[in-house]
Amino acid sequence: MYLSSRIQNIKPSFIREILKVTAQSDAISFAGGLPNKDLFPLNELNAASSLVFAEHGVDALQYAATEGYPPLKQWISDQYRIREGLEVKPEQIVITNGSQQAFDLIGKVLLNEGDPLAIEQPGYLGAIQAFSFFRPAWQSVRLDEGGMNLDDIRKALKCSTRLFYSVPNFQNPTGLSHPNQNREAVADMLRDQECFFIQDDPYGAIQFSEQRYLSYASLLPNQTILLGSFSKTVVPAFRLGWVVVPEALIDPFLIAKQAIDLHTNSFCQRVLHEYVSGDSFAPHLTNIIDNYRAQKQAMVDAVVEMMPGGVSCSDPEGGMFIWLKLPENISARELLEYCMERKVVFVPGDTFYLGAEDGNELRMNYSCLSAEKIREGVKIMADGINQLASRSR
Amino acid sequence: MYLSSRIQNIKPSFIREILKVTAQSDAISFAGGLPNKDLFPLNELNAASSLVFAEHGVDALQYAATEGYPPLKQWISDQYRIREGLEVKPEQIVITNGSQQAFDLIGKVLLNEGDPLAIEQPGYLGAIQAFSFFRPAWQSVRLDEGGMNLDDIRKALKCSTRLFYSVPNFQNPTGLSHPNQNREAVADMLRDQECFFIQDDPYGAIQFSEQRYLSYASLLPNQTILLGSFSKTVVPAFRLGWVVVPEALIDPFLIAKQAIDLHTNSFCQRVLHEYVSGDSFAPHLTNIIDNYRAQKQAMVDAVVEMMPGGVSCSDPEGGMFIWLKLPENISARELLEYCMERKVVFVPGDTFYLGAEDGNELRMNYSCLSAEKIREGVKIMADGINQLASRSR
Repeated sequence: MYLSSRIQNIKPSFIREILKVTAQSDAISFAGGLPNKDLFPLNELNAASSLVFAEHGVDALQYAATEGYPPLKQWISDQYRIREGLEVKPEQIVITNGSQQAFDLIGKVLLNEGDPLAIEQPGYLGAIQAFSFFRPAWQSVRLDEGGMNLDDIRKALKCSTRLFYSVPNFQNPTGLSHPNQNREAVADMLRDQECFFIQDDPYGAIQFSEQRYLSYASLLPNQTILLGSFSKTVVPAFRLGWVVVPEALIDPFLIAKQAIDLHTNSFCQRVLHEYVSGDSFAPHLTNIIDNYRAQKQAMVDAVVEMMPGGVSCSDPEGGMFIWLKLPENISARELLEYCMERKVVFVPGDTFYLGAEDGNELRMNYSCLSAEKIREGVKIMADGINQLASRSR
Repeated sequence: MYLSSRIQNIKPSFIREILKVTAQSDAISFAGGLPNKDLFPLNELNAASSLVFAEHGVDALQYAATEGYPPLKQWISDQYRIREGLEVKPEQIVITNGSQQAFDLIGKVLLNEGDPLAIEQPGYLGAIQAFSFFRPAWQSVRLDEGGMNLDDIRKALKCSTRLFYSVPNFQNPTGLSHPNQNREAVADMLRDQECFFIQDDPYGAIQFSEQRYLSYASLLPNQTILLGSFSKTVVPAFRLGWVVVPEALIDPFLIAKQAIDLHTNSFCQRVLHEYVSGDSFAPHLTNIIDNYRAQKQAMVDAVVEMMPGGVSCSDPEGGMFIWLKLPENISARELLEYCMERKVVFVPGDTFYLGAEDGNELRMNYSCLSAEKIREGVKIMADGINQLASRSR
């Protein structure tokens, strides 16, 4: 059968396959990346929805502007000013169908086949999938507690890299954040190069600490593309995210968005705006932060307490994931096999690397589990690590 | 500035530009293509929305399946059986962000740069825009009252055309429908060729007559891709459409959809399903059909009564548009200039042709105007035609 070349190299997500296995069982899943649905503001969204029907009437149901609902764009712009001291004009914001759609827009507007695209490694799988359709020449930039590897960036820039993709805050999959010093060094290297820095920030508002992180948009104002999402802070079902682009890119992004789907669901944009601009959003945000912080702490504590020496993990300041490093000689895929038999799942770390097939790292999600379940699952993982370690001795 | 090659050739829609001009004025616009918002089922959707919040709870707000909400897919499948006698498995259906998104999915999965893509001429502008991003080699197939031109199809097939795009029922822009005999002849030519027929059908349910049209999905079951939309029958703001693909294409389409935006707004899929599967949808559909039929008739009657000899128009059996042919020596763009000064707008026909710049055809929309306003606008157009005709004599 005749298919485009671009589709033929792309495989369905391994994560999706794991989730299928665990969806119907009583498994303890550290594999997912879903926000905790028990924390969704159900009643508040119901009220906001009724209000939109009552006060906006049929105008809320007609075709709408490609760029998004103006009051929502204004609200997002205000948040950047209030929370980060950033000046973002509402015109620079395009509302998207989840921030996932922003990858597709960026690819459509900025990527030719074979163009170099740099991504931190390990990196977000959804971005790798979406950008892969445009068949870029991937450049990999190692990420660790110190941030992005500057030598790797230097190398990528020598190859005329056009785009850098990164999740500087509470990254998926690692939970790491780039230190400010690293951000400044990276920005110095990129400044005035023909290169855009894509700062994906789905977890930015879910921060456990008081640390102030520099936004790339303040370091590289004309070169940064900012992504944002309401999926983690409000609900995923509405598929509402946004992309902030430098002014020179506004028109190309609108043309691309119009071709892709005319505009994003405008009824839900109004409902969301009613909700986030009201009084109950701030306490809601505090509530999910408090919950996720406690879940993260339960997971880190359990790992420290129960796992053998040679295992280390990240201790994120926000977001929904921790990153585990097993002793060098232990395979994450083998551990997964052991754990799946005992109904515990996680995501092997190689999934988040370009071209890797196994390794000793893995991702664990804590957002949907009680402290008890977290301890129960970590215990089984610890047993598995001990067993694999004794076998390999 | 560095942009992808694909974006550099694409211009914003001329229609969009016209609509901007007329949005704030008291113009009589035949230029739009919006459904009539006064006919939206506001109270029913409000009730359906409340029901979803009350009965589905937080499950309606979480991440959901890439392919769409299963009961909605089942309902669409049932409708094909009931209305057209077509067997479409729910698995073949992917819910999209409006049927516009289906163009992007088709392009992602089936088009390499330079692949021949045939489209009826005049043809739907949104499809031309969306497919243009994949830089196909366009093949044009003339369309008239007899349907698609068979010689042009023969020529397109000789160039190994992979995809045919068409709106066989109540087409946008012309309002024409392909006669069944033409459909059978086209299908005979395409059968067993490595070529998909894309039957876009946004207006299929808005039919004024009793005529039964053959679906390409029954003529070419393994080669037809069917598009559908709720934007014209329910509301556009929800951005809900769908694509039906042959079984061999299901996986590639799901992989592409996952990369584009993970899934379509699932809350609104549930609300829509509550509504369309209830008792009030059938009378609603009858109501919009009756209204649009009356508006269409008012427009055709006004044209026949007021316009000079040499002007002809289509008399659609459904949809929202008529197609006007002016005498050969009259320019639609010049007529538009005359009319815009008098606050009447329509869309010059060249907009719907690949590469054309002017001509004597134009598109008129009737769905949002009263019979009085229709007559008032047609009168001004008739005056303009007479004036241009006297000038060119």
